[in-house]
Amino acid sequence: MTSPQPTHPRAGDPVFDLHVGGKMEIAPTASVADRESLSMAYTPGVARVCTAIAEDPELSQVYTWVPNTVAVVTDGTAVLGLGDIGPAAAMPVMEGKAVLFKAFGGVDSIPICLDTTDVDEIVETVARMAPSFGGINLEDISAPRCFEIEDRLKKRLDIPVFHDDQHGTAVVTLAALMNALTLTGRAPGSTRVVISGAGAAGVAVAKILLEYGIRDLVLLDRVGILSSARTDLTGHKAAIAALTADVTGRSGGLAEAMVGADVYIGVSGGTVPEELVASMAPDAIIFAMANPNPEVHPEVAHRHARIVATGRSDFPNQINNVLAFPGIFRGAFDARASSITESMKLAAAEALAGLVGDDLADDLVIPAPFDPRVGPTVAAAVAGAARREGVARA
Amino acid sequence: MTSPQPTHPRAGDPVFDLHVGGKMEIAPTASVADRESLSMAYTPGVARVCTAIAEDPELSQVYTWVPNTVAVVTDGTAVLGLGDIGPAAAMPVMEGKAVLFKAFGGVDSIPICLDTTDVDEIVETVARMAPSFGGINLEDISAPRCFEIEDRLKKRLDIPVFHDDQHGTAVVTLAALMNALTLTGRAPGSTRVVISGAGAAGVAVAKILLEYGIRDLVLLDRVGILSSARTDLTGHKAAIAALTADVTGRSGGLAEAMVGADVYIGVSGGTVPEELVASMAPDAIIFAMANPNPEVHPEVAHRHARIVATGRSDFPNQINNVLAFPGIFRGAFDARASSITESMKLAAAEALAGLVGDDLADDLVIPAPFDPRVGPTVAAAVAGAARREGVARA
Repeated sequence: MTSPQPTHPRAGDPVFDLHVGGKMEIAPTASVADRESLSMAYTPGVARVCTAIAEDPELSQVYTWVPNTVAVVTDGTAVLGLGDIGPAAAMPVMEGKAVLFKAFGGVDSIPICLDTTDVDEIVETVARMAPSFGGINLEDISAPRCFEIEDRLKKRLDIPVFHDDQHGTAVVTLAALMNALTLTGRAPGSTRVVISGAGAAGVAVAKILLEYGIRDLVLLDRVGILSSARTDLTGHKAAIAALTADVTGRSGGLAEAMVGADVYIGVSGGTVPEELVASMAPDAIIFAMANPNPEVHPEVAHRHARIVATGRSDFPNQINNVLAFPGIFRGAFDARASSITESMKLAAAEALAGLVGDDLADDLVIPAPFDPRVGPTVAAAVAGAARREGVARA
Repeated sequence: MTSPQPTHPRAGDPVFDLHVGGKMEIAPTASVADRESLSMAYTPGVARVCTAIAEDPELSQVYTWVPNTVAVVTDGTAVLGLGDIGPAAAMPVMEGKAVLFKAFGGVDSIPICLDTTDVDEIVETVARMAPSFGGINLEDISAPRCFEIEDRLKKRLDIPVFHDDQHGTAVVTLAALMNALTLTGRAPGSTRVVISGAGAAGVAVAKILLEYGIRDLVLLDRVGILSSARTDLTGHKAAIAALTADVTGRSGGLAEAMVGADVYIGVSGGTVPEELVASMAPDAIIFAMANPNPEVHPEVAHRHARIVATGRSDFPNQINNVLAFPGIFRGAFDARASSITESMKLAAAEALAGLVGDDLADDLVIPAPFDPRVGPTVAAAVAGAARREGVARA
């Protein structure tokens, strides 16, 4: 019983045609087609299930959809490359995310677009909804609020809380970099990395690279390298500067960062002048991930670098979060993990990198999004890491 | 890609077997099976849809699942007959409700079980989530908080807010009563009604009966008739007393209420002594809706009354909310109503009552829950009333 869709304003445009009525629906898995089934799925039978859970709350992990369900939470402040478009306009992205969660991870997820951008209010709202969900995927929330929101929710909740713009990006980037370093004969400890962009993705990529063993690393914002040489840095930028450029004493602008660098990772937008690309080390690695316009166009990049990746599906080596988040939550749920830890993210990156196997080549440092092994392999690695680390309950 | 279910604690019990993994899942309606479809449902294509909605927020009604989606919100304080069992244990009921919404109304709904019982916090939380939903169905929230929560959300939001324990019950009860009055040749203005129970359902039934034209009406709580003769009444009980017993000057206990009464409506639990049932008017009407134990067992009721209804599926005349809420939301959504008004509820009751048609009989005053005409007929009546009242946007 549904109602016909009226002709819509952009009828004939395939993307808009596809979006009429949204991209997802609820599918009952229990029948209520007759009196007997109704009395089991609803009253009076359901009362016994409720009573059992009231007596042993752990049973909600068995007899409800909660342990397989993620809230995809946004405030619409940092949507794709569009910026602060608000909660209503963010919904198509969140529905898309939910479709990907299901298609690639078997994870049920619900888009929750919030009518507030206040950190306290977002934290409180999500915490109050938490009994309804097995995990929280924060999405497209602008920096620096995203850092505090995630930190506070992680402390407060005993279910996975994961800001995909940070950690999904970081995991896939690291996976591709692992293979790129292998191909170019580099060790992490002697590789010089430049990250352009100090928002959610840039900071998270920096942190996972530090975990992985990269020691010479700078981040840049529009002003230049984040370092204590600057007097304008506070909060998360000052904190990450202390862990990166300040360790090696680097400072300056993009030109100072790029000359001799082994790896450029763009998560910022903008364009890197070709002469700076040309100043990188031999066998350079360029991950220009801005969408739809990479910071270095692959054609330009290939003139000066050996391994090139982008966020686009029409070039080789696509750094795409869909390689990570469905399998990460699948694995966390399979292990009933209480959080998604650093070691679980590293395990996901290693598993992803390993999937390339014997096919490893300059134009194949990361699996394709539609490789059917990706979700299960990442999930198994993440669940294993959760169990080894002691955060698993199954 | 899902994981096998482990053996569960109550394996072999059909109700628990049915509940393993919950009763619902997310079903994508858009494909992401290849590069082209992914680029339409997600980046980069989705960005154009987001931009269009950012420019014209009304388009979220066309290009997202929001306008067909209800949040089923509870705090777990008044679940079925179980009382305050908390949000986690309430989930199986909320999932069941979601299954019914889809099966009987084509409405997508999401269970939101809140980890707070504070009125302000519930109102704020729901209001912040509201951009994600086309309507709010409040469920199993205890009185008197349910009244204030609903009132405040209705004022604050421009989407339907509906507390089913109140209004769903009221609509179905009125529908059955309309037919029962017809069968027994009574007019509303000269019919004496007793409602046992002054919680959410009792108060809402009283209000809709007043709307319908019942003038001699009393409500009882455990102490007796709600009237100004009592000094213990405050808040919603004092308010409803002023509209009911105080109008006719009635007071006293259940015995005083029952003697000579035309209609008894039980939404309280407990048991009415048979001698009080016997004291009702000839051709009495008894709706004993407590589940699983009606206030008057049908066998006892039939000794003294002509028309008997219960909340149970194993007796004739089942007063079941599933006859109302799916069609009411379907109709509100089809009309894009900004609220569910009194006239929409009355229209739903009239439509339900009318469906019985020529089959009208003492043991058939209300359609069966599985009558396939129910949802569409209620929906059409509700949408029509919304358009007549000017709350429709479609």
